[in-house]
Amino acid sequence: MIKILLLGSTGSIGTSTENCIRRYRDQFSLVGISVNRRIESALNQINEFSVSHISVGTDDAYNQFPRDQYSSVTLYKGDEGLLQMAEELDYDVLVNALVGSVGFAPTVAALKRGKKVALANKESLVVGGEVIARVMKEFGGTLLPIDSEHSAILQCLNGEESKTIESMTVTASGGPFRELPSDQFSKISVETALKHPTWAMGPKITIDSSTLMNKGFELIEAHHLFDISFDQLKVVVHPQSIIHSMVTFTDGAVMAQCGLPDMELPIQYALTYPKRLPITSPRLDLATLGSLTFFEPDYNRFPCLNLCIEAGRAGGTVPAVLNASNEIAVELFLNRKIAYVDIAKIVSEACELHTRQDALSLEQIISVDRETRSLVREKYGR
Amino acid sequence: MIKILLLGSTGSIGTSTENCIRRYRDQFSLVGISVNRRIESALNQINEFSVSHISVGTDDAYNQFPRDQYSSVTLYKGDEGLLQMAEELDYDVLVNALVGSVGFAPTVAALKRGKKVALANKESLVVGGEVIARVMKEFGGTLLPIDSEHSAILQCLNGEESKTIESMTVTASGGPFRELPSDQFSKISVETALKHPTWAMGPKITIDSSTLMNKGFELIEAHHLFDISFDQLKVVVHPQSIIHSMVTFTDGAVMAQCGLPDMELPIQYALTYPKRLPITSPRLDLATLGSLTFFEPDYNRFPCLNLCIEAGRAGGTVPAVLNASNEIAVELFLNRKIAYVDIAKIVSEACELHTRQDALSLEQIISVDRETRSLVREKYGR
Repeated sequence: MIKILLLGSTGSIGTSTENCIRRYRDQFSLVGISVNRRIESALNQINEFSVSHISVGTDDAYNQFPRDQYSSVTLYKGDEGLLQMAEELDYDVLVNALVGSVGFAPTVAALKRGKKVALANKESLVVGGEVIARVMKEFGGTLLPIDSEHSAILQCLNGEESKTIESMTVTASGGPFRELPSDQFSKISVETALKHPTWAMGPKITIDSSTLMNKGFELIEAHHLFDISFDQLKVVVHPQSIIHSMVTFTDGAVMAQCGLPDMELPIQYALTYPKRLPITSPRLDLATLGSLTFFEPDYNRFPCLNLCIEAGRAGGTVPAVLNASNEIAVELFLNRKIAYVDIAKIVSEACELHTRQDALSLEQIISVDRETRSLVREKYGR
Repeated sequence: MIKILLLGSTGSIGTSTENCIRRYRDQFSLVGISVNRRIESALNQINEFSVSHISVGTDDAYNQFPRDQYSSVTLYKGDEGLLQMAEELDYDVLVNALVGSVGFAPTVAALKRGKKVALANKESLVVGGEVIARVMKEFGGTLLPIDSEHSAILQCLNGEESKTIESMTVTASGGPFRELPSDQFSKISVETALKHPTWAMGPKITIDSSTLMNKGFELIEAHHLFDISFDQLKVVVHPQSIIHSMVTFTDGAVMAQCGLPDMELPIQYALTYPKRLPITSPRLDLATLGSLTFFEPDYNRFPCLNLCIEAGRAGGTVPAVLNASNEIAVELFLNRKIAYVDIAKIVSEACELHTRQDALSLEQIISVDRETRSLVREKYGR
């Protein structure tokens, strides 16, 4: 029985994780969950899976929680609650499906206990990859990717020697603006930016997908997850999202993991790695699809991609600045305070103004993160 | 140092194997070779790799061999010579690149000695798969595929549990007549049939590729190599030949091995399996290729595919009849004695007229093979 702590339990990754647990109730149990505000969904999960611990994000939601009816459930609160659960609970796997850099501290806490972390929260690695690497070196712990690209790479590496890895190619759907002429980018509205062609996800990651910032984050993640240099990391735009990513080996062989878009596969794979458990889902039929297409990414129309590569190469505190400035910029765009094209400009400016420091600790990274947020919010959020 | 016995040393697989040995002279040595007629090429190989044993196919070529100049080289002759080398020589891997069912006996002989067999000779498994399975059960030995499709599947299975395999998809270039309307098949000439769109190979296998008989053989091979049922084997036409084959797992994940067409990769992989050694070759660049296309195979225009599946399902002596009748039919077509469309008709008729027996021994299979050849040659070869 694998005991799961699921942080971010009511988002798209959270509910897909729920489906995996539901599929194999004899193999998985849910010991703790967290929600930001959605108390009603949380209560359903508590009832269905007999969850004994919950952390609630906002004060309002926390106060709404019906303590009397759920007296056996231990209640936590806010970012601190997430961290406490990761530090205190009895679990085998932390499924970290939190959005934003708030996910970083629980990841570190779980790894410090030598736990397995199934990571959908990409900010953990984007802002804190170097810190996490040190924690894992000292305390052990296992980091397994949940998103389809890194899960694909993990599957491609199965049974292979690391010295034979030549390069890794992350595929990108290209987002909704793949074919949009560059002079139209200034007119992009919140509504059009929220329509992703392949995946249904939360608003923050949907915007990040449309700017290719998300793809750039994935390069930084891959760099840390698989200990590979940015020179060995490539991106190819593949609108059908059927090939989820690839690894090229030194003999020229390319291993690719493919399939219809289905988040439950990488989640379940992370939970049971390196084993697989059956999933009854529609299967890939290439003859019916007919064709798969591939393009070079356009670094001019999508400047966020290069911003990520540069920040990733710089390392230290720079990726934390990249991520924090992007989080606030996306928030400002969603609140219609800035234009779509301003997202990249704000991130670029924040990275340029920042004086790089070596990444020393979780606390330092969190402080750089907060500082960057205040700066960006102050300058553009009025 | 891996000692290699290379049967069929001057064909396309043979010379690609030579290149692999040349690339890693410190890891591979060539202890024996065989040629049918090409004495001059054989002498070059003997000189370059200090080969100590050779078998020569035809009487004429055997008599031409300059024994005086090569007194230290042990000379063998004919089909018997191939078998003797497999039985007597000191080697680690038999690379069986023979064409036709003549390759069956040396495969069995090597496996009976517990050797590793890198198999390009598909007839070994097509005609004798059941016998080979029994030999391997009794004597051990390892069978590793050399062709790109089965090598791809082998690579996809790396690190995976066999119980999680759901199906295997063999890709097919579709051959030169993929788009030819069915009413044009009766006019296909030897010259057009010998032009394969992707691979440069010998005439027999080029014709087999054009009829998709070769693809059908590959299904029978996959059935034996990977112990998988015909219900779990699929074919998809993929004209670019970039995805070399795929495996679908029970969780819906599809692993695919891809690359530019390069026979040296599967050969070297079979020699060093499960390790990889670097090969400097042009790398796959999907963005430059632009697109990959996929089609259902057309079982009506390419009846050989179903003939193979039926013969494979029937098992016993039927696949031997399928193969022998095809070998003679292709020979008759190349000698302009029959039309292109007669190949499938002759094979179909031979299989229908045959009374299936259980496959008991190499000798029985060889006798069925000879009988079928005589019958077909007698009936159509005048």
